[in-house]
Amino acid sequence: MTKLVAMYKKPADAAAFDAYYTATHAPLAKQLPGLRRYEITTGKVMTPQGPSSLHLIAFLEFDSADAIQAALASPVGGQVADDLRNFAQAGVELLIVDTKEI
Amino acid sequence: MTKLVAMYKKPADAAAFDAYYTATHAPLAKQLPGLRRYEITTGKVMTPQGPSSLHLIAFLEFDSADAIQAALASPVGGQVADDLRNFAQAGVELLIVDTKEI
Repeated sequence: MTKLVAMYKKPADAAAFDAYYTATHAPLAKQLPGLRRYEITTGKVMTPQGPSSLHLIAFLEFDSADAIQAALASPVGGQVADDLRNFAQAGVELLIVDTKEI
Repeated sequence: MTKLVAMYKKPADAAAFDAYYTATHAPLAKQLPGLRRYEITTGKVMTPQGPSSLHLIAFLEFDSADAIQAALASPVGGQVADDLRNFAQAGVELLIVDTKEI
């Protein structure tokens, strides 16, 4: 299993971010070809010491890293990337990882 | 479901890190009380543009944030935290997040 992890930094307006993410970005991202599972954080992104600098993390699972690259290169992938400017002005870091259970 | 996400920065000696993590740290962390699932990245932690600054990410799932705090406060949790100095000198960031599938 390969995960695309999107880590969103805290926005200026958290309520506006959440409303846009729920109503627009997530429904768009759910259309990414090859997407197997889509999880997002609920509530605050914490550290053991307290709140982190992140607002939301999305975990999108695909069959392989190639499937993620294909999804990002697809027309929907282009729309998802373009849509970031509408709500993720504070910044987002994307990671692509293969994982195994141990 | 609540995840404890441990993001390890690239170590000076990746082979030594991997050997220690596999032989010592992971078996210790698997003993954390309340741990439901333990996934680690395999291969490089990538971004869409190329390698990231991270070497390894571990995803540990528990029933709740309270269960994670209890695990970290347990004797095994203390050993796991103390063990970081033996291989994670480059740094590790811990995040605690509740997640939902959407």
